[in-house]
Amino acid sequence: MSVLRVSRATAVTLDETDPLARFRERFVFADDEGLIYLDGNSLGRLPRDTAARLAEVVEQQWGERLIRSWSEGWMELPRVLGDRLGETLLGAAPGQVAVADSTTVCFYKLASAALAARPGRKEIVTDVDNFPTDRYVLESLAASTGATIRWLRGDPHSGPTPEQVADAVGPDTALVTFSHVSYLSAFILDMAGITRVAHTAGALALWDLSHSAGVIPVALDADGADLAVGCTYKYLNGGPGAPAFLYVRTEHQPELRQPIWGWLGRREPFEMAPGYEPADGIAAMLSGTPPVLGLTAVSVGAELVIEAGIAAVRQKAAALAEFAIELTDELLAPLGVSVGSPRDSAHRGGHVALVHPDARALSARLIADGVIVDFRTPDVIRIGLSPLTTTFAEVWEGLERLRQMLTG
Amino acid sequence: MSVLRVSRATAVTLDETDPLARFRERFVFADDEGLIYLDGNSLGRLPRDTAARLAEVVEQQWGERLIRSWSEGWMELPRVLGDRLGETLLGAAPGQVAVADSTTVCFYKLASAALAARPGRKEIVTDVDNFPTDRYVLESLAASTGATIRWLRGDPHSGPTPEQVADAVGPDTALVTFSHVSYLSAFILDMAGITRVAHTAGALALWDLSHSAGVIPVALDADGADLAVGCTYKYLNGGPGAPAFLYVRTEHQPELRQPIWGWLGRREPFEMAPGYEPADGIAAMLSGTPPVLGLTAVSVGAELVIEAGIAAVRQKAAALAEFAIELTDELLAPLGVSVGSPRDSAHRGGHVALVHPDARALSARLIADGVIVDFRTPDVIRIGLSPLTTTFAEVWEGLERLRQMLTG
Repeated sequence: MSVLRVSRATAVTLDETDPLARFRERFVFADDEGLIYLDGNSLGRLPRDTAARLAEVVEQQWGERLIRSWSEGWMELPRVLGDRLGETLLGAAPGQVAVADSTTVCFYKLASAALAARPGRKEIVTDVDNFPTDRYVLESLAASTGATIRWLRGDPHSGPTPEQVADAVGPDTALVTFSHVSYLSAFILDMAGITRVAHTAGALALWDLSHSAGVIPVALDADGADLAVGCTYKYLNGGPGAPAFLYVRTEHQPELRQPIWGWLGRREPFEMAPGYEPADGIAAMLSGTPPVLGLTAVSVGAELVIEAGIAAVRQKAAALAEFAIELTDELLAPLGVSVGSPRDSAHRGGHVALVHPDARALSARLIADGVIVDFRTPDVIRIGLSPLTTTFAEVWEGLERLRQMLTG
Repeated sequence: MSVLRVSRATAVTLDETDPLARFRERFVFADDEGLIYLDGNSLGRLPRDTAARLAEVVEQQWGERLIRSWSEGWMELPRVLGDRLGETLLGAAPGQVAVADSTTVCFYKLASAALAARPGRKEIVTDVDNFPTDRYVLESLAASTGATIRWLRGDPHSGPTPEQVADAVGPDTALVTFSHVSYLSAFILDMAGITRVAHTAGALALWDLSHSAGVIPVALDADGADLAVGCTYKYLNGGPGAPAFLYVRTEHQPELRQPIWGWLGRREPFEMAPGYEPADGIAAMLSGTPPVLGLTAVSVGAELVIEAGIAAVRQKAAALAEFAIELTDELLAPLGVSVGSPRDSAHRGGHVALVHPDARALSARLIADGVIVDFRTPDVIRIGLSPLTTTFAEVWEGLERLRQMLTG
């Protein structure tokens, strides 16, 4: 007989009292497959309105209004949507956020701009466990500018602290850049503290919000961040390969220059005049033509998070993770699975890392069995807990299946 | 009584005998507005299948398969679609084309890669009338690398010749880059000839195919091109801000390195290993996550051109332009409008430049009157002739309205 403190009944009760439960019906679920989807931090589920909204934009704005739509809203989409995300989810006053390009391209633009803004300095400080695309972009910029990268190694289940950063920065530091929430452990770095340390050294701080945006509140303005980028296809449910956002603090906009000087970042782009002159404000961070279909889908997904309210979303994310951790302690710890994420919700984003030496094989078996998780090298089964769509019952079922696998 | 050689009746006859007329029903037309759309070279019309195909991808691949779709086709989309464009429209054997990012970002990657591949050389040769985003990107790269730009000025209604390029290149030339078809005059540059001149000087040749792809045949492999980029939202009907394509000749792929080192350009991206190592082949030109919605719409639009066949498309483009030029000579030349495009179809792409000192005001009046054209500084009314959707009757009506405006 079970003596578990947590059980399927616990999960059912938690779902029944979940104030965000009603949001599930705003998303599409395939009825017949019983999928356990613990990967909303990799690709958020499809909102029920996305296909219709895309059809509307495609048929009316593209099909009927054609090129005229550029002056009827399309051209402003990157900034209008950016302001909306800034105001509701990122703690950024208007005029500092734009949505365009991939996260990688946005990160490249801002990291490059930061190095150029500190011309005498040649060092970049980052985390050896930072998300790969960020690391690779920094390596590229180091190679092309002669900068060096100082790789910090934080606690493997957490991340670098302001103290560690303080030990690493100096008069040669141009840029300090981290993921706000670690893609591995979900540890939340101290944005205000690390930014302060960067500023004390005269460096700029660039934050990757890919695993923060839409699941925990972000306070870019208040925390003093100089620059930020983030992904919209995770907790913002923007769809596969959706355009990313970038943030440049107002006070830096006059001095910072991103390297991809395209026509849409130029003052009066349709004059097509000789000589690049950056546009005023955040528009100077744009390059090519805005990806209207992608922006449309981002808007639908983000509005659901905005409607739910980031505080409520954050609260449920914490509750889901606490439940997952309790289950892991009870069901899985005796079978060799440990928790690789912070136990204190205040330090943890929207996913939980489960550590096991056979994580790779176990992840593959779980996925084949309809429990969608992510494997992350070397030994992490990463479960994503997307507050608008993930139920406590799903978490229970997913971890129960893992238990069966480990005992079967 | 009219003594015109060309008339509305001529247009009707030409439409009745147009072998591509049946493609019009594959596109969406708003029934009630009588729009004269002469801007398919800026934004191609909406294919009838696009909204349904988007809904299918969104609902089935995203909604049901979720993250699993990345291994069920999404990850290969940039290269599969690139190969398809290469084989049918661009004259490129497989493994050399990928679709991703904006045209501006693609151009930045390849221009940057070319300069890095010629480290001792510091000069870029281009056209003072090249498309703005190309000029601005080159200015940025010149500023960051210390390169200089040699601006050629071709005949204003045509463009630089191989002879002019031969006079400009030298042992310091790293990169020679032009638009294959001028966005202003529609003049087709001699890709084979100019590329040969570039190679003789030891430089690389980068072609912008934005105004060529989908309207005239391109022979990248045969013409010896090293690098190319192009837009998909013009004659390929890929939708507003659709992702662009890039081409890197197979023999250059091992040596060329683009600067935006993202995870999807890395060998084994999901190992998330330390240190960037470029993937084999054209994949090394990718950076961020592929924009699946945009790629889906590009595929639908491009397949229509492929189905029609680029030779037939090219033939109708020439016929439409010849008709527009005849009409201009008869109706508009007496009113001060001249033809700013080559008169020989062999040297002209899919649009026609009409030159008039009041082009700006006239364009605005035409658009307000439902005749959608483009104004291009300083004095060009640009009319785009999109072979799958533009009728001869539309051309007649558009130019007749301009005549009325100039006489009214």
